[in-house]
Amino acid sequence: MARNLLSRYPWVVSPFVVSAPMKVMSGPALAVAVSHAGGLGFIGPGAKTQDTTNDLEKASVLIKGANAIPTTSSALPVGVGYQLWADDVGIAAAAIEKYKPCAVWLYAPKQGSKDYSDWSSRIRQASPETQIWIQIGTLQEAKQLLQLSEQPDVVVVQGAESGGHGRANDSMGLMSLFPEVADAMASSRIPLFAAGGIADGRGLAAAMCLGASGAVMGTRFLAASEARISRGYQDEVVRASDGAVSTTRTLLYNHLRGTFGWPEEYSPRTIVNQSYVEQQQGKPFEELQSLHDEAAKAGDKGWGPSGRLATYAGASIGLIHDVRSAGDIVRETQHEALERLQQLFPHKN
Amino acid sequence: MARNLLSRYPWVVSPFVVSAPMKVMSGPALAVAVSHAGGLGFIGPGAKTQDTTNDLEKASVLIKGANAIPTTSSALPVGVGYQLWADDVGIAAAAIEKYKPCAVWLYAPKQGSKDYSDWSSRIRQASPETQIWIQIGTLQEAKQLLQLSEQPDVVVVQGAESGGHGRANDSMGLMSLFPEVADAMASSRIPLFAAGGIADGRGLAAAMCLGASGAVMGTRFLAASEARISRGYQDEVVRASDGAVSTTRTLLYNHLRGTFGWPEEYSPRTIVNQSYVEQQQGKPFEELQSLHDEAAKAGDKGWGPSGRLATYAGASIGLIHDVRSAGDIVRETQHEALERLQQLFPHKN
Repeated sequence: MARNLLSRYPWVVSPFVVSAPMKVMSGPALAVAVSHAGGLGFIGPGAKTQDTTNDLEKASVLIKGANAIPTTSSALPVGVGYQLWADDVGIAAAAIEKYKPCAVWLYAPKQGSKDYSDWSSRIRQASPETQIWIQIGTLQEAKQLLQLSEQPDVVVVQGAESGGHGRANDSMGLMSLFPEVADAMASSRIPLFAAGGIADGRGLAAAMCLGASGAVMGTRFLAASEARISRGYQDEVVRASDGAVSTTRTLLYNHLRGTFGWPEEYSPRTIVNQSYVEQQQGKPFEELQSLHDEAAKAGDKGWGPSGRLATYAGASIGLIHDVRSAGDIVRETQHEALERLQQLFPHKN
Repeated sequence: MARNLLSRYPWVVSPFVVSAPMKVMSGPALAVAVSHAGGLGFIGPGAKTQDTTNDLEKASVLIKGANAIPTTSSALPVGVGYQLWADDVGIAAAAIEKYKPCAVWLYAPKQGSKDYSDWSSRIRQASPETQIWIQIGTLQEAKQLLQLSEQPDVVVVQGAESGGHGRANDSMGLMSLFPEVADAMASSRIPLFAAGGIADGRGLAAAMCLGASGAVMGTRFLAASEARISRGYQDEVVRASDGAVSTTRTLLYNHLRGTFGWPEEYSPRTIVNQSYVEQQQGKPFEELQSLHDEAAKAGDKGWGPSGRLATYAGASIGLIHDVRSAGDIVRETQHEALERLQQLFPHKN
């Protein structure tokens, strides 16, 4: 199954490392760098769907230049992600037809199966060689996917450890969630990827043991030199530790940023700072809002323990200690995973 | 490190499978069966500390009989667990001196480091060959352990997926928690075991990739034929699925059972049933209490989706589909883990 999958992404080196389509922060430079290093890089959704089209244009230019990626596929060797509740399927389909990304990652529908079906048929029509990835976070979603007439090519199973938007109230750690979903989907033979809480080769190897064809990392790539991220935000990802205590799921920062409209099943994990601490202490939202807006003018100082700005990140922050090139992150993660498996393999015959 | 550890438990077959010391339910028959199959079985705390002493007596008799376990160690080849907030250190130390269990598992102190130090020095004095295992669930606890003058021999890292009592508000899935704790404790060279959400060889192999010397399973052994558990409870562990939705952490069932006194850092994960559903709907505790007490008289019918009795279990319930002998569970988990690692090992040279 994994071998068959690799044939669709001929530049990808096993074990399969994916950079998540993080909104805005996964720009074309990051996605291209990840694919260039033998992983699969996804461009994240933009503030508007048209921004993603522009990112695809930039990625295709980068790939034609010094960053050529050896591939026998006619598809663009980077993927792209859309948030179905917010993105425009018409604009997305036009971009997919024009740039033919190797994979499109669909997430957060407003109307579940209906949205997945609509998007999938538009994408299949626009670019038959493009593979459809769908991210889920619950067993129920897995069972619903099996009912779709247009089955996805890959399913990403996101655990409770994940950063940014994940399931608000029905998430669970990958250690239990992944194998239960894998059993439920086994008959479909759809390859599964694990996402959430993975930031190094230990997590990649563990995910593979649970049955994943590869691992998706988000937070680790926030600390990639190619990430489209403010310095203050990135510094905080590197600084923070103790993901269980230093991060939480809350809608507060969405509201402070004026982000509304996410389906209610979702809520983002973020590194906590003064906005959250003071909300817990009972400070009224209006005061938090004006303090937040002041902090937003302060640039990089707006992040950090005494900062007030949204710092969406996963529970793996304690495993991330430096900013590296995306290529180094991909290669070191792969190397560490192989080394782990080699150490554990009991009979070398 | 793992090899050195195995020398302390000479009957244990790699990979290292441990049955958790579940209160009352991990009786001598279960613990002896697990060790007999090449794992390490722990007797759980009893309703009173003296009950645990009686269980050690029974285990030692079992081991002298048909269940002889080949060991070169003078220690009893089963372990025993105590809940420090509730158990009597004097009674425990006397039992440890008399029966010399190979390992004592300490958990849930009322006074953190002080309790661990008191218990550890009493145990070392009572039985120098007995190894001390301490279970933690947070990075902070890991750092506190490193400050103890009497270091434990093994540390168990329990993830948020775990059943029964775990951390109430600061737990996290093993995928992120385990490697962060492992990094923090690396210099101590203390072997770490992973607990929480693991119910088969996939989880065991994954835990080893994360850096564990082995895996602890609790819920899986609730569905062992040797578990000291009501049939209705066991049936429910086998029936239930979707651990993310069907289980939750709540103090409700402790209170319905009249169990008070757990330090506030802890709260148990349980399969939800009518008691919880109706509490969420606003039914007063007194009514829930009397309905619960009625259900308790109904025997096995008191469990199940329309039952009302406590059904402490972990998020791995969806991976458990049958009651097996503990020996089969140990051997199949080991076999599946080795098979996984073998499939993933990239170069067979």
